[in-house]
Amino acid sequence: MTIECLTSNKMFGGWHKQYSHQASSLNCRMRFAIYLPPQASSTNKVPVLYWLSGLTCTDENVMQKSGIQRIAAELGMAIVAPDTSPRGEGVADDDGYDLGQGAGFYLNASQAPWNRHYQMYDYIVDELPALIEATFPVSNKRAIAGHSMGGHGALTIALKNPELYCSVSAFSPISNPINCPWGQKAFSAYLGDDKDLWRDHDASELMRRVKQFVPARVDQGEADNFLNEQLKPDALLSAAKSNGYPLELNRHEGYDHSYYFISSFIEEQLRFHAQYLIR
Amino acid sequence: MTIECLTSNKMFGGWHKQYSHQASSLNCRMRFAIYLPPQASSTNKVPVLYWLSGLTCTDENVMQKSGIQRIAAELGMAIVAPDTSPRGEGVADDDGYDLGQGAGFYLNASQAPWNRHYQMYDYIVDELPALIEATFPVSNKRAIAGHSMGGHGALTIALKNPELYCSVSAFSPISNPINCPWGQKAFSAYLGDDKDLWRDHDASELMRRVKQFVPARVDQGEADNFLNEQLKPDALLSAAKSNGYPLELNRHEGYDHSYYFISSFIEEQLRFHAQYLIR
Repeated sequence: MTIECLTSNKMFGGWHKQYSHQASSLNCRMRFAIYLPPQASSTNKVPVLYWLSGLTCTDENVMQKSGIQRIAAELGMAIVAPDTSPRGEGVADDDGYDLGQGAGFYLNASQAPWNRHYQMYDYIVDELPALIEATFPVSNKRAIAGHSMGGHGALTIALKNPELYCSVSAFSPISNPINCPWGQKAFSAYLGDDKDLWRDHDASELMRRVKQFVPARVDQGEADNFLNEQLKPDALLSAAKSNGYPLELNRHEGYDHSYYFISSFIEEQLRFHAQYLIR
Repeated sequence: MTIECLTSNKMFGGWHKQYSHQASSLNCRMRFAIYLPPQASSTNKVPVLYWLSGLTCTDENVMQKSGIQRIAAELGMAIVAPDTSPRGEGVADDDGYDLGQGAGFYLNASQAPWNRHYQMYDYIVDELPALIEATFPVSNKRAIAGHSMGGHGALTIALKNPELYCSVSAFSPISNPINCPWGQKAFSAYLGDDKDLWRDHDASELMRRVKQFVPARVDQGEADNFLNEQLKPDALLSAAKSNGYPLELNRHEGYDHSYYFISSFIEEQLRFHAQYLIR
């Protein structure tokens, strides 16, 4: 298991670093970023928030644009930002920005040509945390968060693995992908035409039926261009209500889909996670 | 004077906006960004901090990467980020990243072909503030700050115009450009070979001889790759000492030249400005 440090920047008394490693679940080399707060040491292992980015993004968006490290440094929390898909010359891709490289959708593809590399669910749930916990001074306490496609990834992964995550949050998640164009395109490609299989990767469907509740917070801008066609937070809220799931959904007037929105409320989301992650 | 709004994003209760306008001093169309904090209104004009970016940058670097808006929203301060040079097809350029488009050096060029457009000093000191103060709910109280080439621009502009700026700060400024490769290349091109003319655009030379002191703060990372060859903070400190100039120079162990460094200390710099700008 070789891991190569690519960049290293001191930030808020801690360190932002990018690494590259061979991901066996994805069958390609992957980059991720980690922010280690100043509290992290071999004698003081800190919990980890995994951040899943959205369509077209890499590890860099949240690390450069959200201001997340300031609050992580205060709270004593590591942040891990994986890439959004497998990458590389031999990896299947599509001309659209919403399928293929940069758009992994955090699930395990069953359909060719995607199934050879697109196993992002296994990478995020198993391989990457194992690597992180073996390499860095972090504990096995995990939270998960994300934006847009990554917000959906965070919700589905936490809902399917309540024993692995202390808390989950999302900005502007794709909340009901079986009923929106982004989700239908991705599920058709990665999972095939059997819509019963899609439901197992839909946040609203999962929230309607899970038995074990991970504390969950969603922030949604009311001026988000994708709100009605792609994101559908009402479906998630309705599912939560029907199941008695204590979802905290915050709507923000005037805010859009960008990192300008995320940076405005990332502090609130991290303080939400700290209630469950840091005791 | 037509001004066109290009983008608009709500952020920390205020608004980040990008505009395009025809700049008469530069003889081309220019883009700038402004952050208006929630306190700004026609009955409550807020002061303005001008931020000058470094080589290769645009208005977007500070607005996307520094986290400056969070503190500006708290303090009630507008932030204006101009571009770093004139731009466009008819504008002179150079193959190097450190000369021409993206590298205006915030001075008025006297030499062809640069002199037709590269009048960034007039744009920053006169034209842009006049436009900002005529267009937005801001007062005529100004501070100025910047990074690298822009840190140098902020220092020289404040030192030459103490009546116009309440305070000045810089991250990692090129402090003594007559004695470093970036400065010598730029001054030769824009000002010609007479080195006596260069001294009037050198922050250390100005700090050694000015009579009126604008409150000044500089933050410099000790792990900055450009520290010894290009930045030379010791020259600035030595000039300040010889003139009794109350320069606050903060050195930060382990920090580099990037926006990861800037974001770590931007709050301190804004609170420094607030002492003078907001009473």
